[in-house]
Amino acid sequence: MINVGIVGGTGYTGVELLRLLAHHPEVTLKVITSRSEAGMPVSDLFPNLRGHVDLIFSEPDVDTLAECDLVFFATPHCVAMALVPELMKRGTRIIDLSADFRLQDVALWEQWYNMPHTCPEIIPQAVYGLPEINREKIKSAQLIAVPGCYPTATQLGFLPLLKAGVIDPTHLIADVKSGVSGAGRKASVRALLAEASEDLSAYAVTGHRHLPEIQQGLNIISSKAVGLTFVPHLTPMIRGIHATLYAQLTQDTDLQSLYEQQFANEPFVDVMPAGSHPSTRSVRGTNTCRIAIHQPQNSNTVVVLSVIDNLVKGASGQAVQNMNIMFGFDESTAINIIAALP
Amino acid sequence: MINVGIVGGTGYTGVELLRLLAHHPEVTLKVITSRSEAGMPVSDLFPNLRGHVDLIFSEPDVDTLAECDLVFFATPHCVAMALVPELMKRGTRIIDLSADFRLQDVALWEQWYNMPHTCPEIIPQAVYGLPEINREKIKSAQLIAVPGCYPTATQLGFLPLLKAGVIDPTHLIADVKSGVSGAGRKASVRALLAEASEDLSAYAVTGHRHLPEIQQGLNIISSKAVGLTFVPHLTPMIRGIHATLYAQLTQDTDLQSLYEQQFANEPFVDVMPAGSHPSTRSVRGTNTCRIAIHQPQNSNTVVVLSVIDNLVKGASGQAVQNMNIMFGFDESTAINIIAALP
Amino acid sequence: MINVGIVGGTGYTGVELLRLLAHHPEVTLKVITSRSEAGMPVSDLFPNLRGHVDLIFSEPDVDTLAECDLVFFATPHCVAMALVPELMKRGTRIIDLSADFRLQDVALWEQWYNMPHTCPEIIPQAVYGLPEINREKIKSAQLIAVPGCYPTATQLGFLPLLKAGVIDPTHLIADVKSGVSGAGRKASVRALLAEASEDLSAYAVTGHRHLPEIQQGLNIISSKAVGLTFVPHLTPMIRGIHATLYAQLTQDTDLQSLYEQQFANEPFVDVMPAGSHPSTRSVRGTNTCRIAIHQPQNSNTVVVLSVIDNLVKGASGQAVQNMNIMFGFDESTAINIIAALP
Amino acid sequence: MINVGIVGGTGYTGVELLRLLAHHPEVTLKVITSRSEAGMPVSDLFPNLRGHVDLIFSEPDVDTLAECDLVFFATPHCVAMALVPELMKRGTRIIDLSADFRLQDVALWEQWYNMPHTCPEIIPQAVYGLPEINREKIKSAQLIAVPGCYPTATQLGFLPLLKAGVIDPTHLIADVKSGVSGAGRKASVRALLAEASEDLSAYAVTGHRHLPEIQQGLNIISSKAVGLTFVPHLTPMIRGIHATLYAQLTQDTDLQSLYEQQFANEPFVDVMPAGSHPSTRSVRGTNTCRIAIHQPQNSNTVVVLSVIDNLVKGASGQAVQNMNIMFGFDESTAINIIAALP
Repeated sequence: MINVGIVGGTGYTGVELLRLLAHHPEVTLKVITSRSEAGMPVSDLFPNLRGHVDLIFSEPDVDTLAECDLVFFATPHCVAMALVPELMKRGTRIIDLSADFRLQDVALWEQWYNMPHTCPEIIPQAVYGLPEINREKIKSAQLIAVPGCYPTATQLGFLPLLKAGVIDPTHLIADVKSGVSGAGRKASVRALLAEASEDLSAYAVTGHRHLPEIQQGLNIISSKAVGLTFVPHLTPMIRGIHATLYAQLTQDTDLQSLYEQQFANEPFVDVMPAGSHPSTRSVRGTNTCRIAIHQPQNSNTVVVLSVIDNLVKGASGQAVQNMNIMFGFDESTAINIIAALP
Repeated sequence: MINVGIVGGTGYTGVELLRLLAHHPEVTLKVITSRSEAGMPVSDLFPNLRGHVDLIFSEPDVDTLAECDLVFFATPHCVAMALVPELMKRGTRIIDLSADFRLQDVALWEQWYNMPHTCPEIIPQAVYGLPEINREKIKSAQLIAVPGCYPTATQLGFLPLLKAGVIDPTHLIADVKSGVSGAGRKASVRALLAEASEDLSAYAVTGHRHLPEIQQGLNIISSKAVGLTFVPHLTPMIRGIHATLYAQLTQDTDLQSLYEQQFANEPFVDVMPAGSHPSTRSVRGTNTCRIAIHQPQNSNTVVVLSVIDNLVKGASGQAVQNMNIMFGFDESTAINIIAALP
Repeated sequence: MINVGIVGGTGYTGVELLRLLAHHPEVTLKVITSRSEAGMPVSDLFPNLRGHVDLIFSEPDVDTLAECDLVFFATPHCVAMALVPELMKRGTRIIDLSADFRLQDVALWEQWYNMPHTCPEIIPQAVYGLPEINREKIKSAQLIAVPGCYPTATQLGFLPLLKAGVIDPTHLIADVKSGVSGAGRKASVRALLAEASEDLSAYAVTGHRHLPEIQQGLNIISSKAVGLTFVPHLTPMIRGIHATLYAQLTQDTDLQSLYEQQFANEPFVDVMPAGSHPSTRSVRGTNTCRIAIHQPQNSNTVVVLSVIDNLVKGASGQAVQNMNIMFGFDESTAINIIAALP
Repeated sequence: MINVGIVGGTGYTGVELLRLLAHHPEVTLKVITSRSEAGMPVSDLFPNLRGHVDLIFSEPDVDTLAECDLVFFATPHCVAMALVPELMKRGTRIIDLSADFRLQDVALWEQWYNMPHTCPEIIPQAVYGLPEINREKIKSAQLIAVPGCYPTATQLGFLPLLKAGVIDPTHLIADVKSGVSGAGRKASVRALLAEASEDLSAYAVTGHRHLPEIQQGLNIISSKAVGLTFVPHLTPMIRGIHATLYAQLTQDTDLQSLYEQQFANEPFVDVMPAGSHPSTRSVRGTNTCRIAIHQPQNSNTVVVLSVIDNLVKGASGQAVQNMNIMFGFDESTAINIIAALP
């Protein structure tokens, strides 16, 4: 049984953490902070939690947080970096769902996030929390940087191809479609139902902050420097990411078997039968990544379809998966969920 | 540990039963039948069940079903009545999610369903499976008729008012809005996304099959014969029922306290604070019914807002709740779910 | 040919006015104002207008506006009342889509809008712009108060019953469902797609600002004081209002023929055949109100179904209809639109 | 003034033709056929047409059709080819919205549509109705094959690049997202709101019937044989196609100016400013194709974003555009529509 704190519980990754942790048999929720909502019962803000979570939002306080075995940061970027150094010193373990510690290259981080990083000395200690790549390092990590949603779907999809070295890594294409919850729970005109429903558009084609994160991850896997075109799209649904990935094969490969072997022992990656088309709803609310591989018309273009729930495997579920690994719990505890269909 | 069979697993109540039962610690799923899909793995039809349910659809067979401790019927009306008499004889317990045994008045049933009932002699043994009213009878029942979705939301909403006798029961109005999954998983033009999205309309204003069921239930509670106008609406969402109920108060009453007392010990009815507006998404995927009571402008018109998930508390979740009661399991087992929000 | 100005063109009623007026053969758009977007081409904000509208947003200026034959106010409440007195003095005609001049009772207005009215002396000159009731007065009006969306659907639905005096006016119920565009084009958490999609809830049950407006309108029609319970609901669609209206009949009436006669010459009210269920999408983007009348189970409860597009007949379309009447154009000019289906 | 007939008016392209033609000043609608609905008023099936279209569905009859100046086929494939030869003989002009005459290579057609073509001798007379490429031929054509929806968005997007010869045509990628109305107005489980809402998936990755059509069109433009990977996706909206196109530049080019020059005189292609992201809703209900061009991170990968309304520019609107060209009407007549936003 561990004591857990959550910093920043008013966003979508916060409420999703609460949903997953509320019934986790090894977790006691001790504190959840929010400057704006301090004093309000969590279940007043999120009625789905009525009868399940009794916590009240409180002002963030380092001493209280430091008493926890584990603190999650479910905050916008730049919040975690202010508190993490002190918590690290006190021995608290940390799972940061924000972008603060995802990039190992500080200069790159500062370029894309357009501000100075306040604790660059901590960055080398951060483990990138993609269990399918870093499971061993996660076990003993004190600080986890949970991957972004687009990076999770994209990296898992390209992983077997790059690792096997059977594609040209210099011209990868990731055409990715996301539900609007990826934009978070903040007032905005663009994400209004009246604006985003019955509509579809690409955005940030010139450059999205997840691009350097994906490139960093793919470059670690690939023997040759990766060139990636990444085009995110906003689609009229709440949850879900569908990554459609394109690469040029450089040699004949049994792609289906390559993927099945790569993920054979992964509890949260499901390689579908040849010819399948995974749907985002089949993973909605769950921590599963479903993948299918195609080679249309036997050309040398391989098409990988990779779907996740952006708030679960793309955020809070992956965070809990990291926690389970860090503390030696069964990796699926509390996140072995079946999607509700329809 | 009980052995469970499901007849008719290809519809929405079937797949929802599977979602809820797959992880039920006291249940072994033995058989799931479907004439049309016999031989197909369940998870081929419903990819959300991949890795969770290994069953294969089989032809319905009375002997196999009779070996189960419990058989669910997740079928259109008229299927259960053909098999129930034989299963009853063999001692199998039955939870029927269809309409076959909901109405105690055979003539009324035959009028609304427009066909002869083939086993009217069984009807008196059927217990109407609304735990908030019939919990004791459910414990020992051999045959449960699970209430319809509209009837569940409407009856729970009117129950305290009628029981307390504080309204005029002769002019009740139930204006009820439903998601499209209530129409089931069958090909239809009307329920296409292209038809039902960005649209809202009433339907069956002249008479819906749930009307006599609701009237039967309300008449049992009310000391005086009930007159009800019931107008169902189709709304552009997948799941959810929102019942807006109107009645004329005949005496001053502390409505909030009346509702809180009535449902104080109910695990699946949540009376919200005065002034609340329950949302269907706060109960999506869960077995909870959330209720709020209003008396606008202090007129004598009371307005009750009652929301459920039509496939859970309005169907499969309520069925599992009945099972838990029948077999002495904790009533919340496997259905103590938190809605995923957003 | 008239010169037209629009004050406040950045909201949904503004862009909808532009859509309707851009191709109006008798209208020259002279000016559109927005403090926040002054200097920006209208079509940068609203790409649907690219190639159709060349205007640039400008700071509001009384002199420029006064040169127009007609000025529309597509603003939140409290904006029109600041400019209208001066424009009236200069002889400009005005169509106000906001609530500033809808209520004739100043005290009532100040109570519901919670602020002092700054030009109460103007209110008596305002004509309530519901053509089906006030067509004659509209012709010569200098100032039109365009009805709200809920009030339009509700008043048109109750009109024939109240005028004929065949119902008890003291216990009317209006259960009304609206798409989210009714909340306007402003950043808000509640109206995010991630919040409002796959959800339905009532709101403002204790009192909505359209209640006194509806009551005022119905009281003018009814010989006896009207008692109304009005419950608005937020539904997961962009456009559309579906009013489901309930009243108790006090005498036998041929309801179908009553409605057909009432609206026989109305270009924008379509009484559907007996037994129909109008759908909001059948009027989407159009100025039509579709109505059907039911008397379920031959009880004395009459059910009226009335649908409009909240942004057209419920706002900008009705505003243009008023303009056509005021300036002697054919009443249907530029608003004789067929809904795109699906 | 021309007399027009429509064969097969019960689908989405049929009702959309009626919406556009009902108010066309040069068109008299003479006949609309439907075997299944013969005898029913069109406006009973499509209530949006009440008050606008008085036609009654009739059995298809060659003599009646042959009296028309122009006959549209809004039918599934294989219907037009049965009637077209006789109508051609009689001198009737024909605009076929189905796939029957889109492919010039009969063998290819028979392979993809899996049946014999019954009038291959007619195919050479068919003009592919993409005005931006074939305007001159369309003027005098007797038979038009209206392009499919995916092919329209994809060909217009690639056209300037291929024509200028500035990309490698052997590895084109078209990642295309469609609303569900593309599947037509027919009962299906897959396209139910309960199935398709809150979901996104690719389909037909191994091969879609629009692939050979796109390849045929691109090969005509390109000096070198085209290699195309085409991945269609089903997205949770009613209307809209968003094509995201990828190609490798082989030389430095001013892409923005290339596109602006190519489409400078096109009434229905709108090249957006550099850096734009066109949205499908900006063209909803309209005949416009909006295009933006990107070259992210100055790599040699060009990304083209091309959006249309699949039922208008992707079907019925383009059909009317062809008609206007064929009969010498102003090309924009009746299709110069502004999208309703939101």
